[in-house]
Amino acid sequence: MVFKVTVNSAWRATRTLWLLVLVSLSVCICVCRASSPQEDSAMENIVTEKKAEESHRQDSADLLIFILLLTLTILTIWLFKHRRFRFLHETGLAMIYGLLVGVVLRYGIHVPRDISNTTLNCAVNASPATLLINVSGKFYEYTLKGEISANEVDSVQDNEMLRKVTFDPEVFFNILLPPIIFHAGYSLKRRHFFRNMGSILAYAFLGTVISCFVIGLLMYGCVTLMKQVGQLGGDFFFTDCLFFGAIVSATDPVTVLAIFNELQVDVDLYALLFGESVLNDAVAVVLSSSIVAYQPQGDNSHTFEVMAMLKSFGIFLGVFSGSFALGVATGVVTALVTKFTKLRDFQLLETALFFLMSWSTFLLAEACGFTGVVAVLFCGITQAHYTFNNLSPDSQDRTKQLFELLNFLAENFIFSYMGLTLFTFQNHVFNPMFIVGAFVAVFLGRAANIYPLSFLLNLGRRNKIRSNFQHMMMFAGLRGAMTFALSIRDTATYARQMMFSTTLLVVFFTVWICGGGTTQMLSCQRIRVGVDSDQDNSMSIAEGSERRSTKQESAWLFRIWYNFDHNYLKPILTHSGPPLTATLPPCCGPLARFLTSPQAYENECQLKDDDSDLILTDGDINLTYGDITVSTDASGAHISGGPAFAGAAGSDDLDRELTYGDHELVMRGTRLVLPMDDSEPPFTDTHHRMRM
Amino acid sequence: MVFKVTVNSAWRATRTLWLLVLVSLSVCICVCRASSPQEDSAMENIVTEKKAEESHRQDSADLLIFILLLTLTILTIWLFKHRRFRFLHETGLAMIYGLLVGVVLRYGIHVPRDISNTTLNCAVNASPATLLINVSGKFYEYTLKGEISANEVDSVQDNEMLRKVTFDPEVFFNILLPPIIFHAGYSLKRRHFFRNMGSILAYAFLGTVISCFVIGLLMYGCVTLMKQVGQLGGDFFFTDCLFFGAIVSATDPVTVLAIFNELQVDVDLYALLFGESVLNDAVAVVLSSSIVAYQPQGDNSHTFEVMAMLKSFGIFLGVFSGSFALGVATGVVTALVTKFTKLRDFQLLETALFFLMSWSTFLLAEACGFTGVVAVLFCGITQAHYTFNNLSPDSQDRTKQLFELLNFLAENFIFSYMGLTLFTFQNHVFNPMFIVGAFVAVFLGRAANIYPLSFLLNLGRRNKIRSNFQHMMMFAGLRGAMTFALSIRDTATYARQMMFSTTLLVVFFTVWICGGGTTQMLSCQRIRVGVDSDQDNSMSIAEGSERRSTKQESAWLFRIWYNFDHNYLKPILTHSGPPLTATLPPCCGPLARFLTSPQAYENECQLKDDDSDLILTDGDINLTYGDITVSTDASGAHISGGPAFAGAAGSDDLDRELTYGDHELVMRGTRLVLPMDDSEPPFTDTHHRMRM
Repeated sequence: MVFKVTVNSAWRATRTLWLLVLVSLSVCICVCRASSPQEDSAMENIVTEKKAEESHRQDSADLLIFILLLTLTILTIWLFKHRRFRFLHETGLAMIYGLLVGVVLRYGIHVPRDISNTTLNCAVNASPATLLINVSGKFYEYTLKGEISANEVDSVQDNEMLRKVTFDPEVFFNILLPPIIFHAGYSLKRRHFFRNMGSILAYAFLGTVISCFVIGLLMYGCVTLMKQVGQLGGDFFFTDCLFFGAIVSATDPVTVLAIFNELQVDVDLYALLFGESVLNDAVAVVLSSSIVAYQPQGDNSHTFEVMAMLKSFGIFLGVFSGSFALGVATGVVTALVTKFTKLRDFQLLETALFFLMSWSTFLLAEACGFTGVVAVLFCGITQAHYTFNNLSPDSQDRTKQLFELLNFLAENFIFSYMGLTLFTFQNHVFNPMFIVGAFVAVFLGRAANIYPLSFLLNLGRRNKIRSNFQHMMMFAGLRGAMTFALSIRDTATYARQMMFSTTLLVVFFTVWICGGGTTQMLSCQRIRVGVDSDQDNSMSIAEGSERRSTKQESAWLFRIWYNFDHNYLKPILTHSGPPLTATLPPCCGPLARFLTSPQAYENECQLKDDDSDLILTDGDINLTYGDITVSTDASGAHISGGPAFAGAAGSDDLDRELTYGDHELVMRGTRLVLPMDDSEPPFTDTHHRMRM
Repeated sequence: MVFKVTVNSAWRATRTLWLLVLVSLSVCICVCRASSPQEDSAMENIVTEKKAEESHRQDSADLLIFILLLTLTILTIWLFKHRRFRFLHETGLAMIYGLLVGVVLRYGIHVPRDISNTTLNCAVNASPATLLINVSGKFYEYTLKGEISANEVDSVQDNEMLRKVTFDPEVFFNILLPPIIFHAGYSLKRRHFFRNMGSILAYAFLGTVISCFVIGLLMYGCVTLMKQVGQLGGDFFFTDCLFFGAIVSATDPVTVLAIFNELQVDVDLYALLFGESVLNDAVAVVLSSSIVAYQPQGDNSHTFEVMAMLKSFGIFLGVFSGSFALGVATGVVTALVTKFTKLRDFQLLETALFFLMSWSTFLLAEACGFTGVVAVLFCGITQAHYTFNNLSPDSQDRTKQLFELLNFLAENFIFSYMGLTLFTFQNHVFNPMFIVGAFVAVFLGRAANIYPLSFLLNLGRRNKIRSNFQHMMMFAGLRGAMTFALSIRDTATYARQMMFSTTLLVVFFTVWICGGGTTQMLSCQRIRVGVDSDQDNSMSIAEGSERRSTKQESAWLFRIWYNFDHNYLKPILTHSGPPLTATLPPCCGPLARFLTSPQAYENECQLKDDDSDLILTDGDINLTYGDITVSTDASGAHISGGPAFAGAAGSDDLDRELTYGDHELVMRGTRLVLPMDDSEPPFTDTHHRMRM
């Protein structure tokens, strides 16, 4: 009874809130539109001042629309979460609201034509970045915004209003993407990520390159066909096709991962998908910029040339490794600063320093000509792996929550802008043939990434990537913020405009259809849910020899890395690990003493390490290390537990359950079709904290 | 021994960190400068693209300088806090570092003259916001940046580099000030603020207006004198003098308050200073914009005219009340949303909503033509008073920490920019006579605010503002971020440029000298430190009749407000207070039932309210309410304690101690001269949380 009353009042309240927010949204749009007419004054000076003021008010109103859109999204999402409705993720919802506002702006509001633009036909032979205009004795300063193709000039003058709600594309790349990418890197600190490192790297690097070239080739075929049929209205070169392949190869399964988290889907599948999506963003960014940099010498600038290709390849390697090095370097500097100062006594200073150092990575990379987004990703991973351990518990929470919030806001802003831009963007080129071709190519490109690579990886993996996992990964190839940011960055040519319009449709389709169908797909593929990664370990049965080979196999990539990290990097950069005086050769004695923190000597007796269950070179070490299962929760507390061998048997347990646990899986699969039935939140605290 | 080792290693580490940061700063400046030369390509298109890329890299590098400046400030401040060195606050330090980098940029680096500017002499009779330039068949879009006076044109072309590190002045007003002001409002929820409400309002409103006019008149005298001596190089009208008066009337004693907090100075003095500084910012903003709006009709636009003055006065009232109403309205909407939805189950959504709603206040006010900064201040106060109680404990922490961080970053950014701009600003006008006049006027203006008002207020207050408090308030009239943001907003005319340069000096002087001398001033004025506001109450001695009159007196402004707030607003907007069904007339029954939360009925028995110790109409109510001393800490827990009458006797206790506690004060005063001696942090957890 009490419950019913609460729900009813919540419903009532929510309905009134809708009205309230919708009314305020429309009021805002009206304000935004009504602020245009202003009384004219005689003095020219005041006219300019008023124009600037009016422009500022207009900007505020435009931004306000987005803020209210996000507010609406948050309230709706709360309702969905409250009612356990999982078919639409917040990003999909943000897109829908964006679409609605876009329709209103496009068709609902008529603004009298603004004739404030003047076309000057002056004899200047360059387009300088800053322009001083002498208007009857007064000088006005103008800054270059960009080139406009001749056929757009009229539309520029016509649709001032729609252009007002259009942001500078670089905003996405320089302001909104970095927190998203950093947060992805910062929340990557998961045991299962490292266990599947080899596969993740293969999918992210090889897979993205394969996907890029498969899509590029298919699109080139499609474009050639279109040219013959006469459907192509402008130039479309092979490099354009490859560029398209690169930008749509960046997957962003944020919707799928949110559901995985909520339903506690198999941790290995989660790690594979999340790791791949984080890293392939970086690969796609650098790949696309290398393709743009492909410029053969000579007359015909779109033929194949070995030197230009090698140069592009060099750029790819150079930019990627440069960004990687910069990101890791700032992470290491932050770790050192937080280790050697007692900054942890002042949480505000600590959090501010962490934030500034992470941001400076982006700026430093951009200033050096590398890719800031990629640098920020690796900085985030380094910060999570080292710096996080040096922070005070309070700062650990603060930084996590800060980037969580920034990520949430940026992500939903991008998706709602995506919805809006479908109607407000001026130069859409929707070509049905190209769109169909793109969907087919995206599908085949993903398939060419997942299936062959999984086959090859399974040759080396003992813990195979089963076919239902492969199908799920295939299905979870959503496109999102990164693809959008890359495609909106340059919409100057016909080819780029067609790509942008098509990319929008690909994002909409994958987020709504694939994202919405995740729970169905999970039950259809009989993928087990409700897996607690920590329980997983303590439930295990020791199976001596088999376990050891599992461990040896799953950790082959990391044996060297782990030893190096554990013996040298962790002791240098954090307070954990064995003291350097024990691991470094005696000749480095003074340095080792200088770098080793007092806590490291205490650690020597009771060795705790996050990765200690990741790798075990043989049974002896296993016994020496005491096999402590460590799960690091957000507060940084190390919970050690479980019997001997407990931490090591996780994957065997997985195999066992996968082999003869089918009955239970079917049961769970059936229940999944009606996810609304769950009356209790199915996630534990640890998982809740890790939600993006 | 252990302690010594730790300090030594900390020192060593810190020294290496200095080197590291300084090296990285210089590397960054080099990168920033070296990115200019680029190999030229034949194609014009690529030239434009490269220019844009170069410009982006330049921007990144410039921003990076500020980030590293802030990082350096944080590390130094940590060291100061670590060593309990209280003579220089972080903002003062940020200014010093800014100055140093400014000197390097101005004199240390020579960049070959950039000839990318072209002056066009075209026959256009207006300066449109967007300009399309037809350069040999290609159209380029330019946006208006502003007018430049004719004598600046050369310097624009010369000092491209210095102009690059100059931000758009509106950035301060629209991006950096709002979080600072919001945070001030959001952290204003203090018992002692409400107890001194009347005095605070008097200082903030009357005082600021007095100060503005006194300074304006004195400066007008000074300017007239300068004109006669022939020291004035341009126009300087009376409205300019008044404008100067308005902008330097905004006090910002952030340094002083930080020290007050740390030393736990008398809570009433703290409340008076903090409350005044928060509110007078709002008054100064609106006052300055009303003065700018003063434009008499007719030929001579600088004569006195009653109509124009009345219009200005109307604008002041309209803008202030409009901004106030908007700020309160969004606060109320947020309170309602957080009360009636179960958003508190999802902390991320709750925090995001809170952040977005608070930000939308600013945008809404700007879009409506009101002052966003003022709206944000009152929104912050409303959020703290109502919404904060509806948030989950986790979100209460998150929002506090988020705005604390934003405030910290924005404040230090502004102060370091202030230091930088002393050398990089192109149009400084340092006039010794004007500067001396300004310092005298600022001093006298502050005196004309504090002393007469204190005298008048003391006529009505039983708990007098003693003369040492008055001297301290006089001394703590620092100028800061708001004064700077107001003065840099418009530096087009000669008068404004002179004001800007003088304002910078006023800020530097007050922050360094007055800020640095706070501890000396405290001991010199024998103001007691180490006061715990909570202990204060439980230590008290009940003194029947005297106590009652104290209460009646200190709360006279709030009797009506308190009753209204407690009986209607709190029950409507939060879960606390008596149920509305009990306080509203019976005719409003259904509405009252709809608005009352279930928790309110539970509250009815054991009434807890933050303000219950603020006002007591007479002894009976005192007995009825049980006199619960409530201290609300950041987690929202209500700690009730103390014997009967405990909460009410705080001010008597204060008087008693002030009257015959002089011996102890002298002792403390002596100790204060050597603040480095303290070996333990003197602040309690509650105070620590409230630190800005």
